[in-house]
Amino acid sequence: MTNSLFKQHWHDAAVVDIWSERATIQCWFDVEAALAKAQAELGMIPTKAAAVIAEKANAAEVDLERLVQDIGFALHPFVPALRQLEEICGEEAAAFLHWGATTQNIFDTATSLQLQRSDTLLRQRLERLLAKLAEIADAHRTTVQAGRTHGQHALPISFGLKIAAWIAELRRHMDRLRALEERVFIVRMGGAAGTYAAMDGHGRAIQARVAKLLGLHDGGLPMRSSADHFAEYVCVLAQFAATSEKIAQNISFLQRTEIGEAFEGHHDGKIGSSTMPQKRNPARGMIVITMARLLRLRAPAALDAMVQMDEADGAISGVCEAVVPEAAIMAVSIAMQLELLFAGLQIDAGAMRENIDKSRGLIMTEAAMMRLAPKMGRDHAHRLLYDVAMAAFEQRQPLLDALKSRHDIDGVIDIEATGDPSTYLGESADCVDAEVHATRTAAK
Amino acid sequence: MTNSLFKQHWHDAAVVDIWSERATIQCWFDVEAALAKAQAELGMIPTKAAAVIAEKANAAEVDLERLVQDIGFALHPFVPALRQLEEICGEEAAAFLHWGATTQNIFDTATSLQLQRSDTLLRQRLERLLAKLAEIADAHRTTVQAGRTHGQHALPISFGLKIAAWIAELRRHMDRLRALEERVFIVRMGGAAGTYAAMDGHGRAIQARVAKLLGLHDGGLPMRSSADHFAEYVCVLAQFAATSEKIAQNISFLQRTEIGEAFEGHHDGKIGSSTMPQKRNPARGMIVITMARLLRLRAPAALDAMVQMDEADGAISGVCEAVVPEAAIMAVSIAMQLELLFAGLQIDAGAMRENIDKSRGLIMTEAAMMRLAPKMGRDHAHRLLYDVAMAAFEQRQPLLDALKSRHDIDGVIDIEATGDPSTYLGESADCVDAEVHATRTAAK
Amino acid sequence: MTNSLFKQHWHDAAVVDIWSERATIQCWFDVEAALAKAQAELGMIPTKAAAVIAEKANAAEVDLERLVQDIGFALHPFVPALRQLEEICGEEAAAFLHWGATTQNIFDTATSLQLQRSDTLLRQRLERLLAKLAEIADAHRTTVQAGRTHGQHALPISFGLKIAAWIAELRRHMDRLRALEERVFIVRMGGAAGTYAAMDGHGRAIQARVAKLLGLHDGGLPMRSSADHFAEYVCVLAQFAATSEKIAQNISFLQRTEIGEAFEGHHDGKIGSSTMPQKRNPARGMIVITMARLLRLRAPAALDAMVQMDEADGAISGVCEAVVPEAAIMAVSIAMQLELLFAGLQIDAGAMRENIDKSRGLIMTEAAMMRLAPKMGRDHAHRLLYDVAMAAFEQRQPLLDALKSRHDIDGVIDIEATGDPSTYLGESADCVDAEVHATRTAAK
Amino acid sequence: MTNSLFKQHWHDAAVVDIWSERATIQCWFDVEAALAKAQAELGMIPTKAAAVIAEKANAAEVDLERLVQDIGFALHPFVPALRQLEEICGEEAAAFLHWGATTQNIFDTATSLQLQRSDTLLRQRLERLLAKLAEIADAHRTTVQAGRTHGQHALPISFGLKIAAWIAELRRHMDRLRALEERVFIVRMGGAAGTYAAMDGHGRAIQARVAKLLGLHDGGLPMRSSADHFAEYVCVLAQFAATSEKIAQNISFLQRTEIGEAFEGHHDGKIGSSTMPQKRNPARGMIVITMARLLRLRAPAALDAMVQMDEADGAISGVCEAVVPEAAIMAVSIAMQLELLFAGLQIDAGAMRENIDKSRGLIMTEAAMMRLAPKMGRDHAHRLLYDVAMAAFEQRQPLLDALKSRHDIDGVIDIEATGDPSTYLGESADCVDAEVHATRTAAK
Repeated sequence: MTNSLFKQHWHDAAVVDIWSERATIQCWFDVEAALAKAQAELGMIPTKAAAVIAEKANAAEVDLERLVQDIGFALHPFVPALRQLEEICGEEAAAFLHWGATTQNIFDTATSLQLQRSDTLLRQRLERLLAKLAEIADAHRTTVQAGRTHGQHALPISFGLKIAAWIAELRRHMDRLRALEERVFIVRMGGAAGTYAAMDGHGRAIQARVAKLLGLHDGGLPMRSSADHFAEYVCVLAQFAATSEKIAQNISFLQRTEIGEAFEGHHDGKIGSSTMPQKRNPARGMIVITMARLLRLRAPAALDAMVQMDEADGAISGVCEAVVPEAAIMAVSIAMQLELLFAGLQIDAGAMRENIDKSRGLIMTEAAMMRLAPKMGRDHAHRLLYDVAMAAFEQRQPLLDALKSRHDIDGVIDIEATGDPSTYLGESADCVDAEVHATRTAAK
Repeated sequence: MTNSLFKQHWHDAAVVDIWSERATIQCWFDVEAALAKAQAELGMIPTKAAAVIAEKANAAEVDLERLVQDIGFALHPFVPALRQLEEICGEEAAAFLHWGATTQNIFDTATSLQLQRSDTLLRQRLERLLAKLAEIADAHRTTVQAGRTHGQHALPISFGLKIAAWIAELRRHMDRLRALEERVFIVRMGGAAGTYAAMDGHGRAIQARVAKLLGLHDGGLPMRSSADHFAEYVCVLAQFAATSEKIAQNISFLQRTEIGEAFEGHHDGKIGSSTMPQKRNPARGMIVITMARLLRLRAPAALDAMVQMDEADGAISGVCEAVVPEAAIMAVSIAMQLELLFAGLQIDAGAMRENIDKSRGLIMTEAAMMRLAPKMGRDHAHRLLYDVAMAAFEQRQPLLDALKSRHDIDGVIDIEATGDPSTYLGESADCVDAEVHATRTAAK
Repeated sequence: MTNSLFKQHWHDAAVVDIWSERATIQCWFDVEAALAKAQAELGMIPTKAAAVIAEKANAAEVDLERLVQDIGFALHPFVPALRQLEEICGEEAAAFLHWGATTQNIFDTATSLQLQRSDTLLRQRLERLLAKLAEIADAHRTTVQAGRTHGQHALPISFGLKIAAWIAELRRHMDRLRALEERVFIVRMGGAAGTYAAMDGHGRAIQARVAKLLGLHDGGLPMRSSADHFAEYVCVLAQFAATSEKIAQNISFLQRTEIGEAFEGHHDGKIGSSTMPQKRNPARGMIVITMARLLRLRAPAALDAMVQMDEADGAISGVCEAVVPEAAIMAVSIAMQLELLFAGLQIDAGAMRENIDKSRGLIMTEAAMMRLAPKMGRDHAHRLLYDVAMAAFEQRQPLLDALKSRHDIDGVIDIEATGDPSTYLGESADCVDAEVHATRTAAK
Repeated sequence: MTNSLFKQHWHDAAVVDIWSERATIQCWFDVEAALAKAQAELGMIPTKAAAVIAEKANAAEVDLERLVQDIGFALHPFVPALRQLEEICGEEAAAFLHWGATTQNIFDTATSLQLQRSDTLLRQRLERLLAKLAEIADAHRTTVQAGRTHGQHALPISFGLKIAAWIAELRRHMDRLRALEERVFIVRMGGAAGTYAAMDGHGRAIQARVAKLLGLHDGGLPMRSSADHFAEYVCVLAQFAATSEKIAQNISFLQRTEIGEAFEGHHDGKIGSSTMPQKRNPARGMIVITMARLLRLRAPAALDAMVQMDEADGAISGVCEAVVPEAAIMAVSIAMQLELLFAGLQIDAGAMRENIDKSRGLIMTEAAMMRLAPKMGRDHAHRLLYDVAMAAFEQRQPLLDALKSRHDIDGVIDIEATGDPSTYLGESADCVDAEVHATRTAAK
């Protein structure tokens, strides 16, 4: 899907590049070069060989067509690339290539490199998105909107609060991403069975050094059948995707014809339907929702792929190899689409205020209850207002009228005071301020 | 994944072609042409326009690069292609293109066409695979092998029986595929809301006629938010994938170093490891397992995508658009890999016979119990042999010796007769014969 | 979850009973009795023993507490129950109990019995639900409602059409359920490795006879590691769950405060919130959605459980044992909740008509386009109306006014005729009639 | 499933208790009492009322049968319990119960309490499990075993290394559990829409205070539709489950009849089969695998449940309410079963050594290659040994013999030195030591 021409505009081109075949091969080569350098430093291989490898290990030199055919013939995913690298480096250096390593050491470390780069893009986009959301939340810290639960008007909120809750959730994802770096962006150079058997006793030192050279972390005991780091990362991306899907779904709901409280940007030439010229669809939101669902289904796959037999099981780790890049590409692309969505978002505060009246004041029932509570107990106030509100609903009577018609309420509390939803926003603005402040402080 | 150059050899090229961008556009155009033809027949549009469309609707004429850019600008997946088709057909015919239809009518019908073609490939491969499996099962209808449950030797089976059980399961998938044709390979031409509003009263007739023209089935009430047909198909493919994964996992197990009962084909140049020259991996099996898992994770996604709001929800149906082609490609490719696997399979009946002795005769404990049962009751026989077998296991004593050392068994039954596992295959051969016969009969 | 006291009202008591521990044990005993009867008929065991077993095999006699403890000690799920059954039947008959069978033969056949009973309940409920939906669809075959796609007003539909589409989907599920009976409600009596080794050559005959006696189907080659029948059933239930979730989600949407087109029944004492006395939530819909999602997640688990090693793998089939009963209970309970939901549903046709005006006539843009199309070509009409509609949207101008202000439209078509959405329902009523007719015919 | 009598022995009784209905109600009441206490401290409600609530809020007083019926009638999950609590507390205190809170505030906070307690049990079990694993790893730091990749002998490892890799993975899960405490075990008291509207300006202070009183963390912006904390926790449990499944699957493999390297404990009366008296199954391992898979399928459900509309959506959060307790119960129970499994594990180092010879020395091919590499280059050594090893495999020739027969190898390297796998364990023992040390240090 991430390769489909029809969906090219869905994806962040930079993250697609990170995971292209050519860039992947370059990462393989970079890992081989770092391994050679570390081994030369420790005297395991000639310094000159390492230098030649570092200089020549250029993926641009690879004959892709031949590579594809050779992989199909050898039924091995890496040896054909290694053969080409040997040729590129020349006989002398080739002798010391891939010394003591196994394919998965190279592949997994390359994936770590690519993941780290994707992750950087993701966080940059998230920071920009958070800044934009903070701006909107701040501007609407007291913009009154119907708070809805289970689809029904519940209490008034500020539109800023809705946004601030998304900020809070996205910021937690940033925390999660920060917390996993050392566990996820790692190097393992333990050879075929994780014993460093072919590293002449220098294995752990080599692994640490390669990590340093590549800007990654030492992965500890290098057992190939341990894939918890990939599962952890994909699970956190899936959590981010779920939040993104929620945001997009909520915005799309606000754009519904009957709601009309917010709208995605429109430009001349943006088309909603091949047969209904009037359609203005929440196009970005739809892209986000689709991609978020596609990303999320990678989470159970990555969890499955942790369950490997013995010291390695390529049938199972192969699933990870497929889903990790896709998840990374979709995560950054989702963030990009959310940026575009909010960059163009039009907000209609007037519609928000109008919609709130559609419950004929019933949205203020709790406010009335809490005024009655000190007089008769919260429990009795709830029972009393239940009767009042149910009747008002049935008869389509405004709440204020219903309250006034009850002698056990009228006079007991100031009924008019429950008429204005803007007086019952609680600590909405404070909550917004806290999130906006935290976002801006973190950005500094 | 299905587009990755590194995995090109995993995939059946014919099914990849069916779902290529160019072939997809051709299917869109074929549906438009069929629609125009049906409408011309009913007098809704000029016959000449339909004829021009039929003649000119050639995807090879489409400028793909421009299309990709236009889709990104319009944020609509089809109108840019329609615009090019209009240009290709010329002003006069263009006036009558896409009459009364909506994008999803075209897309879903095109998908049906592609699915039907994929399905044909799948069944052809399955038939060949079944023929090969029947050949193997037949040849090994009485080849003795350890039957294993929960990883422990249970009872003797014939290797043919193991294969026959796979045949039975695959044949049930064939039945499932046959049973869903009318529900899945369908045409819906109801327009934007499924009302045929722009069809001038001919909607149902047009839909039926388009189905006929395309060799598909009439989809009935054409509500766009009904996606049960896609979910059904993906679920059946997922069931096929699970069977395939089971087969591959079992063969890979038989190839394990300690078991050595069956081996994938090997050729000079097939490589198992970049660092361990001796490795012979179950390479085809690994490909099957990985793809089967990747296919299976599409099932919950397709089920999710059935839950759509209102008369259509592109955010949700977009998930289907992504996973259905991937599932179809992987299903055919899995079948291809299984064909290749069994074409090269080497079977070591001697190793099967040797392995059976690794339980020191304990695999015949039930046989002994069933001989004792008529004498003392099955319940008592079970208790008695439990004691005997547990002690024999602890002391690594052969079952025959253990039986002989018990005066309450020796003489009561003919102990030697429980020594030969080939005498306790039950109806294995009959079961094999039944499946082989059914397979060959179906193929005629 | 299906056992939670807090959720007791969610579940159909009859289906919960079918899967209770006591009822499960009874099914195990019924299978043992049928096996004994079949074996006596073929002379494998004494007729008297079979008669005693048939008479005594009563789960009410089982000491549940002791059973639970014995299972924990033996770490075997069935032998402790078998021991109690032996005691209940007495020494003489006990000798011939469980002759030639293995635990899973008994368990899986018992599950088939329970599934078949659940399935009967499910279909009874579905038939009642379909009858009710047909009644509603019929009554609203021309009730005008906004058709919505991607959350935006698209075209007018009739409310009956929306219902009829659900009928069509549910009827397809009925077809699917019918189509799988022979594959799913089956008996397998092949013993531990599927060879019928302990059946003295009568295995296939016994299996066929047990099936007959229990009203089930012959499962063919009785390999224990074949679980495609369970996966198939759960997948179809998951498809039904997805449709149910869609229906519930759509009704809940219609009940939203701003929409108000339909409402779940209310009774005095039904409470929406502990703090907001006015809340009327779509309570049944919420139950349906939650259960449907819980059911759906059983589908990938059941598919996973098809992938078993060797001749049986209890670690994997154990997943099936857990999820199949839960799926069956939830399916019937979902159907019950939908029945309750529709039994109380209140429909507000007036609100439907009012809401349609919220797009200020834009919902009729396609109607205008199709009138212009014969004059200028559909392609040009689309472009022209795109400009008109986009401008009208921005300026909040009614479509009719916008059309009238264009000299290239006014006079070209009869603009007023595009003002009434009830004239643009297409074949909605015919589609409703077809589904209602089909439902009523099937019920006869 | 977690309630099934048949599976009672699968589960840790203590964690089942934590999530029992009675204990759940007690947690609800404890949260109400803490809320009242915090509000009394801030002068929002009378101190006496808070004291009475604290004293009387005892779940043992609740009439469960009545509660169940009332919930079914009110179709509300909490108000009936609140009504009983009001009665228990008496008129005066009842007036101030549930002040300013909404049901979900109580439920989610109660769940946090229960999760925190489950989590404590989980970590206690994990610590004991780690100590046991460290003991085994230490004892077998140089016990030679075949390292297997893709099912084929790869390189020698020590059995301790295999265990140490599990330790490393489990320790990372401990890190993950520690890292999420502040985000997951939280209090949110924001009322119905997360605004603290009924908290009289003290909302944020109350929330912080309730957290303190209950030993939980302040949940920040209290939006009810934020469920990332539950998803995060379930995802980490799913990762732990995957590791557990891997461990159990590996041990079960080592117990296979043909391998016989390790065995679960056996006791007289532990039964493997109702028909095969000799069966010794990996019973604990099977329980772990089944439960781990059942746990893992909760992860996508919890991720799904993050996607909520508006300020709350009970249809979606209901899924969380169902799966979170199940996941917590299964996690602790899995840990318990692993403890039991390793407590009884029998290890056969002799069998490990014997099995290694089944590849006829080929497991040492890399060792030979790395000795040749300095003489001819790693690339040439790989090619040369590929030819040697492939031929040796085909002819079933021992590697040493094959090497000796090559004049370009014999004499070039010391062939005999490649005959002893115990000389090629690399840094296995060092890696074991590091994990054992880390485990023991952490435990102090």
